[in-house]
Amino acid sequence: MYRKRLERLAQTMMGEEWDIIALNPSPSLYYLTGLSFHLIERPIIWLFAPDEQPIFIIPELELPKAETSGLSFEPYSYGEDEASREQAFHKVAERLHLNEKRVGIEPLRFRVFELRLLEKAAPRATFSSAETIFTKLRIIKDEKEINAIRGAVEIAEEALKATLPLIRIGMTELEVASELTFQLLRAGSQPEIPFSPIAAAGPNSALPHATPSDRTLQAGDLLVLDFGATCSGYISDLTRTFAIGEYDDETAKIHNIVCQANAAGRDAIRPGIACQELDRAARAVIEGDGYGQYFIHRTGHGFGLEAHEPPSIREGNELALAQGMTFTIEPGIYLPGRGGVRVEDNMVVTQDGGESFSTYPRQIEVIG
Amino acid sequence: MYRKRLERLAQTMMGEEWDIIALNPSPSLYYLTGLSFHLIERPIIWLFAPDEQPIFIIPELELPKAETSGLSFEPYSYGEDEASREQAFHKVAERLHLNEKRVGIEPLRFRVFELRLLEKAAPRATFSSAETIFTKLRIIKDEKEINAIRGAVEIAEEALKATLPLIRIGMTELEVASELTFQLLRAGSQPEIPFSPIAAAGPNSALPHATPSDRTLQAGDLLVLDFGATCSGYISDLTRTFAIGEYDDETAKIHNIVCQANAAGRDAIRPGIACQELDRAARAVIEGDGYGQYFIHRTGHGFGLEAHEPPSIREGNELALAQGMTFTIEPGIYLPGRGGVRVEDNMVVTQDGGESFSTYPRQIEVIG
Repeated sequence: MYRKRLERLAQTMMGEEWDIIALNPSPSLYYLTGLSFHLIERPIIWLFAPDEQPIFIIPELELPKAETSGLSFEPYSYGEDEASREQAFHKVAERLHLNEKRVGIEPLRFRVFELRLLEKAAPRATFSSAETIFTKLRIIKDEKEINAIRGAVEIAEEALKATLPLIRIGMTELEVASELTFQLLRAGSQPEIPFSPIAAAGPNSALPHATPSDRTLQAGDLLVLDFGATCSGYISDLTRTFAIGEYDDETAKIHNIVCQANAAGRDAIRPGIACQELDRAARAVIEGDGYGQYFIHRTGHGFGLEAHEPPSIREGNELALAQGMTFTIEPGIYLPGRGGVRVEDNMVVTQDGGESFSTYPRQIEVIG
Repeated sequence: MYRKRLERLAQTMMGEEWDIIALNPSPSLYYLTGLSFHLIERPIIWLFAPDEQPIFIIPELELPKAETSGLSFEPYSYGEDEASREQAFHKVAERLHLNEKRVGIEPLRFRVFELRLLEKAAPRATFSSAETIFTKLRIIKDEKEINAIRGAVEIAEEALKATLPLIRIGMTELEVASELTFQLLRAGSQPEIPFSPIAAAGPNSALPHATPSDRTLQAGDLLVLDFGATCSGYISDLTRTFAIGEYDDETAKIHNIVCQANAAGRDAIRPGIACQELDRAARAVIEGDGYGQYFIHRTGHGFGLEAHEPPSIREGNELALAQGMTFTIEPGIYLPGRGGVRVEDNMVVTQDGGESFSTYPRQIEVIG
């Protein structure tokens, strides 16, 4: 599998005239090699030039791990002192004639740390974004990847079902988030969950990326649960919004609008149409009901090895959907100081439409 | 608390002649503002110049979260399109006269993504490492921070005690890691644990940063468990090494050597001595017994808001220990293809020595 992916990388690079790709530990490195490392203060850089053996700049203590992977690479390892690290970078710069070369990196992953080390070793090389390469390689998921995503969604929904009966008025958001994490693992998620669950209640539910707090659940609260699992390296990313104890008319109204917007976004999916059309379909519902100004984010984002990947489901993105693309549909209405609703599904583009991996009911449900 | 920290930041910056500090979501940003965000494809940058109101470049959808923090800042928010994002950066560059300015960043956190956006908005600004600033601010922990760390260690040890009786021959490393994560949350860790636990058995235990795999535990295996909890934002990072079912003489020998090295490192701690002295003390034990070549990493690293912070406990680091510094002591012996032992404690420098927050027995223990 990895050999084929490296061949596709080489072909894609030649099409775009890249000399070298340099990756630090990232989902793309995992995609190409199956290797994952923590991103710490010891630099790890994998350099790839078509038709050559890949090169690994790697701390000595990580070398055995890379070696047991069975991958072919030329190691340039270094010890715990700066001098040996610098030497490894200089040797690699010489070996690859890095000066004058056009080196592609992932700006969302590559840190200034790694950039400065490479720049020091090869001051005349240029380092620029090769994001398009990785989008091309990774945006269409194959059957194996889709099965993994399906598994990640099933685990997440099982965890949700196990968590809901335990939620009570008086619990804190943090307690709810911990319980959900706990149930994600019990349901079979890999230990590295894609993101720490969001449990946001009452006014906090109006913050799309709220951090769970000590606030206790109260009757009449909206409770946004945004969470995901990991299965075979692939993730899920779901949101459902619940009412604690009871709900009033306005709550019922905005929840219903969001569910309709979610359905409109999902129903619009088919190969060939532009990503922005899905955003327009979902947004039209919310705008039509007069809440447009409270839908303060795009309708969705791609996901797979990462919780956020291309394609972006937003106005202005003219990329055409294609079979095998996976993304979220997650419209929301956020009333500052009062509360918010978001309903998020995980979708895949099929031959003639879209399929939702997630099936947990979307309508308002009273819990607690 | 945050006001005082910002005052210390301003003083430290003036001492080192920095004009501006630019932070993306990071532990230092959390330290200074109490705010945490996920690191995604929407840039968030907080810019600080002494005697001025801090500036936040922030996506519209995160603005309410920053505002509810009660912090004072001047917001430059942007929507989901690139044009409005670019405009926000340009306005900030003008507002701060960013061109010609000396801007301090954290190279281990700042991505090429954020760097390029700032460089585009202010091509004549210089962006370089202000790591020393953040080391100065954060390396000495105050009483409140130490109490949080103590809590994180207690939670981790409680989770270990709950996990050990459940470990059986035939379980996979992944199952052990999931169970440990699960118990960390049950014992009260915040949902965002500092790192996914390492459970590495048999030959995998010889890889210091092994990723848990499908390998099943077998009699005679060494099992390395490396894990931590989060409490009030602060973390713990512990390792103990167990024998599955039984152990042979060489296993007993290397385990004992590592425990002695760990004790030597801990016992050497006192204010005023150089970090490298602790590395030498621990390493001398392992070298004296002929295993020096198998101790392939430094003796320890600082920790606090992050799992890896200054000070580095390694040869060549002449930084003097001072009361309130917190770091790991974690010597190891790694026999390739056979197995490894690591014993890691979490230490704080006291008025006249060192204290281990962690107290779980270090000697070899048979489980399974």
